[in-house]
Amino acid sequence: MASIAASSCKVILSAAIAKSLLKEVEEDLQKLGRPPKLHGYLANRDPAARMYADWTAKTCKENGFHFILHEVDREELEEEIRKANNNDDVDGIIVYYPVFDSKRDQTVQWAVSMYKDVEGLSPQLISNMYQNIRFLDPPTNTRKSILPCTPLAILKILEYIHIYNPVLDYGRRLHGRRITVINRSEVVGRPLAALLANDGADVYSVDITGVQHFSRGSGLKKQKHDVEDMQGWSLEQCLPISDVVISGVPGDKYKVPTQLIRDGAVCINFSSEKNFKPDVKEKASIYVPAIGKVTIVVLMRNLLRMVQNRPSQASRNNGFE
Amino acid sequence: MASIAASSCKVILSAAIAKSLLKEVEEDLQKLGRPPKLHGYLANRDPAARMYADWTAKTCKENGFHFILHEVDREELEEEIRKANNNDDVDGIIVYYPVFDSKRDQTVQWAVSMYKDVEGLSPQLISNMYQNIRFLDPPTNTRKSILPCTPLAILKILEYIHIYNPVLDYGRRLHGRRITVINRSEVVGRPLAALLANDGADVYSVDITGVQHFSRGSGLKKQKHDVEDMQGWSLEQCLPISDVVISGVPGDKYKVPTQLIRDGAVCINFSSEKNFKPDVKEKASIYVPAIGKVTIVVLMRNLLRMVQNRPSQASRNNGFE
Repeated sequence: MASIAASSCKVILSAAIAKSLLKEVEEDLQKLGRPPKLHGYLANRDPAARMYADWTAKTCKENGFHFILHEVDREELEEEIRKANNNDDVDGIIVYYPVFDSKRDQTVQWAVSMYKDVEGLSPQLISNMYQNIRFLDPPTNTRKSILPCTPLAILKILEYIHIYNPVLDYGRRLHGRRITVINRSEVVGRPLAALLANDGADVYSVDITGVQHFSRGSGLKKQKHDVEDMQGWSLEQCLPISDVVISGVPGDKYKVPTQLIRDGAVCINFSSEKNFKPDVKEKASIYVPAIGKVTIVVLMRNLLRMVQNRPSQASRNNGFE
Repeated sequence: MASIAASSCKVILSAAIAKSLLKEVEEDLQKLGRPPKLHGYLANRDPAARMYADWTAKTCKENGFHFILHEVDREELEEEIRKANNNDDVDGIIVYYPVFDSKRDQTVQWAVSMYKDVEGLSPQLISNMYQNIRFLDPPTNTRKSILPCTPLAILKILEYIHIYNPVLDYGRRLHGRRITVINRSEVVGRPLAALLANDGADVYSVDITGVQHFSRGSGLKKQKHDVEDMQGWSLEQCLPISDVVISGVPGDKYKVPTQLIRDGAVCINFSSEKNFKPDVKEKASIYVPAIGKVTIVVLMRNLLRMVQNRPSQASRNNGFE
């Protein structure tokens, strides 16, 4: 305890960040003038999925959003989703995974209209994200593409703790930052590395297969990031040169080696377990131990964007198919 | 030109930073309710000194400060300064150097009361700065110690361009930043390195004699910075690991080697000549080509602090001797 008290590390809890983001959401909600309606689909008995559904319900209720939970048989789920896609009364759709806990879950995901997919996992949205295409309607650029919730939550955290530099132009505000992301899953780690690099960072994406460097190159001359395999690299090369370390390794076994982290680094944990050891506070300038509360606000923010993005009635009927 | 247009570097001019700082000064001035009086002493025929005096006059006039220029014989200068020290009508004193252009100039400087020294060069103020003592009246801490104008101008620039992280506690806001300062003069380079390190940065102070590392150590456990000689180090070691490069080498010969600067670094020039080559814009995220206009606003800010710091009549009579 004594050593922790003596350290200069700022521990930032996700509740504080969520609160600040909620203000923005509330302002947008007021402008909208009606509560957006989120429809949730639960088709399994997974207690974690149930808990996430309950949490969504609570947060929606507290913040003036409508949430309707549908408990459905998993064989009927895709048909229910298609109905919701074509129902004007549904603003956003969230499915609680796993459903089949197999590749079939991806087919379920693809059934969700990209115009109602609050989780930002539709193929077109994911493709936009990797390609650094930020709008659904280029070149008009009035309807923002939706980003997946967890990676976006981490970007919002980096904004909150001033890792994004607002002096730089939008889309380049991480220029000069070196960021290590430990986890390269398709749902969080890889999209996160791509998003950070598209915003200008040099990103070292690390998993058990090795290290990849995501970057837009010197002077950010490339419009989107390239990926390069870093032969022979490991955390030993990445951590000492990284300003920011973001880790999301599942399970309670994995720990980021504190001795490799550079003094004054910013450390963010998005695993449900603690990836950083308590002594991280001896090294880090800022430590964010969990991100869950931010993710749920980002989900509501995505829902709001869905409503703001809705084309006029005439064009919507085309857009939805 | 084509290559510069294609670069993503943000060039920030000192006029924009000065304007933002002036707003703060104007607010403080309004609270004060009377124009502070700055007395300038010119005892030489140096055209640069005359130009600086004219510039002070102009900036004071434009911003509601009184400026009175005294042209005096240099042999009578110390006596004039002593009179001003004891004259309640004088809020701040500035001497335009060089006067004797020898060590005797330091004796002249020492004659200026620390309570009227807008340039922040009095021995007690300089000692406070190196020791990281931020107030004149500890432990009450209501009267801020005055910092030398040029180093303080550079700190204010770093604040403006968001290199200081406001999420961190005051006094630690550069934690995690690596900064190379090229120039280790007693008037700017060395005090600047000390100030940056006291605020939490890892500073590499470079001049022709070699590299020194100024730092408060891992986790900023030390209350003030230590200085360590970096044997065998040169810009080749410092620049590739530095987020910020600050250069102030006099003359037009010296150029910082662009190829050593890390991509996305912040580059600040405080030399009257250009220390960075045009191609710095291919590498830097932010480039500040000059700082003069900020320095003059900082001088007025120091003058305001002088007035705010003035003890009550009774105690002042003691304080001034």
